[in-house]
Amino acid sequence: MAAKTCDVVGIGNAIVDIIARCDDGFLTKHSLDKGFMRLIDAGEAAELYEAMGPATERSGGSVANSIAGLASFGADCGFIGRVAADQFGGIFRHDIRSLNIAYTTEPATDGTPTARCLVLVTPDGERTMNTFLGASVDFAPGDIDRDLIRSAKIVYLEGYLFDKDPAKRAFREAAKLARTAGAKVALSLSDPFCVDRHRDDFRALVKEGTDIVFANEKEITALYEVNSFVEAADAALQDCEMAVLTRSEAGSMIVSAGETIEIPAEPVSRVVDATGAGDLYASGFLFGLTKGLSPEVCGRLGSFAASEAISHIGARPETNLLKLAQARGLLV
Amino acid sequence: MAAKTCDVVGIGNAIVDIIARCDDGFLTKHSLDKGFMRLIDAGEAAELYEAMGPATERSGGSVANSIAGLASFGADCGFIGRVAADQFGGIFRHDIRSLNIAYTTEPATDGTPTARCLVLVTPDGERTMNTFLGASVDFAPGDIDRDLIRSAKIVYLEGYLFDKDPAKRAFREAAKLARTAGAKVALSLSDPFCVDRHRDDFRALVKEGTDIVFANEKEITALYEVNSFVEAADAALQDCEMAVLTRSEAGSMIVSAGETIEIPAEPVSRVVDATGAGDLYASGFLFGLTKGLSPEVCGRLGSFAASEAISHIGARPETNLLKLAQARGLLV
Repeated sequence: MAAKTCDVVGIGNAIVDIIARCDDGFLTKHSLDKGFMRLIDAGEAAELYEAMGPATERSGGSVANSIAGLASFGADCGFIGRVAADQFGGIFRHDIRSLNIAYTTEPATDGTPTARCLVLVTPDGERTMNTFLGASVDFAPGDIDRDLIRSAKIVYLEGYLFDKDPAKRAFREAAKLARTAGAKVALSLSDPFCVDRHRDDFRALVKEGTDIVFANEKEITALYEVNSFVEAADAALQDCEMAVLTRSEAGSMIVSAGETIEIPAEPVSRVVDATGAGDLYASGFLFGLTKGLSPEVCGRLGSFAASEAISHIGARPETNLLKLAQARGLLV
Repeated sequence: MAAKTCDVVGIGNAIVDIIARCDDGFLTKHSLDKGFMRLIDAGEAAELYEAMGPATERSGGSVANSIAGLASFGADCGFIGRVAADQFGGIFRHDIRSLNIAYTTEPATDGTPTARCLVLVTPDGERTMNTFLGASVDFAPGDIDRDLIRSAKIVYLEGYLFDKDPAKRAFREAAKLARTAGAKVALSLSDPFCVDRHRDDFRALVKEGTDIVFANEKEITALYEVNSFVEAADAALQDCEMAVLTRSEAGSMIVSAGETIEIPAEPVSRVVDATGAGDLYASGFLFGLTKGLSPEVCGRLGSFAASEAISHIGARPETNLLKLAQARGLLV
């Protein structure tokens, strides 16, 4: 097995976030469930955008955010995901490359635009996401950069993308390729509705191709169709090596053979925008793993990175996470 | 003269800002003069963007920012400025319309993209701007919404746009139309280099078509080719009714026949991003004028709005300026 030149390669949606503030009445008026992500088509996207207030655009995408966070910790990273050859695609490509993240996916030229997520942030800091998947969703085995996958210590897959058959095939191929090359495979379940739609395929992917599963309480209980968190954690351990389970302000739980570790959430003075909390938790956790740190320290790094993400608008870090973690004594 | 249904109509560049943080070394490496705006072509824009760090996109444009600030004070506003029929044009149009600002300019379809400004923010909060004017600069008399101009109490013109002949003709037409309809014409000189390039035309516009001129120290001394601020202020008063002169942290000076009023800058705990300080000063000042307030109160509203703008990334207000000004006792 060749020496690994890359810490983590992510595969996920390549999305530009369009972030606006709104009040709770706006969510009610547009029948939006606070705190959830829903998929919308081009027409709904245009209609909702029209109704929204003034916005800020910045690159997003769940695993892409995690990879941006890993780069902020100083990890060597790569990302694989599909944009279109349009201005939003240019934004996504620029932002990811400007962090020295390897990104080689060819932009699509079939006329489908780059994916966008209309993110509505309520005064309590909660984010409600409405995603038009555009070019992102037509991800297929041909989009996989095989050399990049082979170079990685960890390959991190985004559940959100696991929706269409070609993308599913691509995930299975990537997972196999990664493991053959000696990499760990991590999977984020991303969304309970996506899990519901593809439960059997997700279970097969967790069982056959995944070492570490990231999920929140709703996602992991949806996957195993059980009522309690503890039952879900037990079920996950039958399928893979480690389950990293996040529970918002209740912190996180890291479950592996023989031990269960609870990590408190890092306190913040005010939740400005919850966007990216889970994504950045994964950044911190995976960074710790690439450094061979204990699950407990990995979890603390996750909580730390999540707390930075929720203290400002937007998901990606606004400060150098490595320096900040060092200043806080979390890393040397 | 018909009753005025609109407080202020602005005419200016329709730009999307691409804002990234950088250190001073980046400015030196790319030979950029801190705190200034320079015009760049499409090639330079692509090159500099490539070199920049991860960015945030949001609508900008100097007078467009002022109009957004006026809307935040609760004024009825309109904006006239040219975007292209592309994704950045869609961002600009959405953001301005979402503030209930009348905006009817047809997007250009000749292939020239929407203008963008690469804004580099250094750790001291100073912004260095690199503008590719794209579709914005081909503004011509045909782009003027005559009914909108006639409906306004004040028409506010952006000096940055006063660069090409068709735009100059459009400004002269708009100024004439406004005054015939009983409106005041305000002009922002915008930039000392633009003033240098078109000094005679600017002087003629100030003398023949302008009631209120907004400028900083460098711009007003460039216009009159004098060394001192006081001489420049005297010269301006020969040409128009009022000169509103801003001097960053030294505050502002309002010069009109018979009186000169000095207004201190509003103190802020930290300058996060100086982008929009002058634009938002104009928002506060013009809002006061539409309410018939004294020049001193107008100036205080200007300082107040500028202080809000520099306390966060981006030019446009992030809070409701009317409510905030009321809470501070500046407005009832």
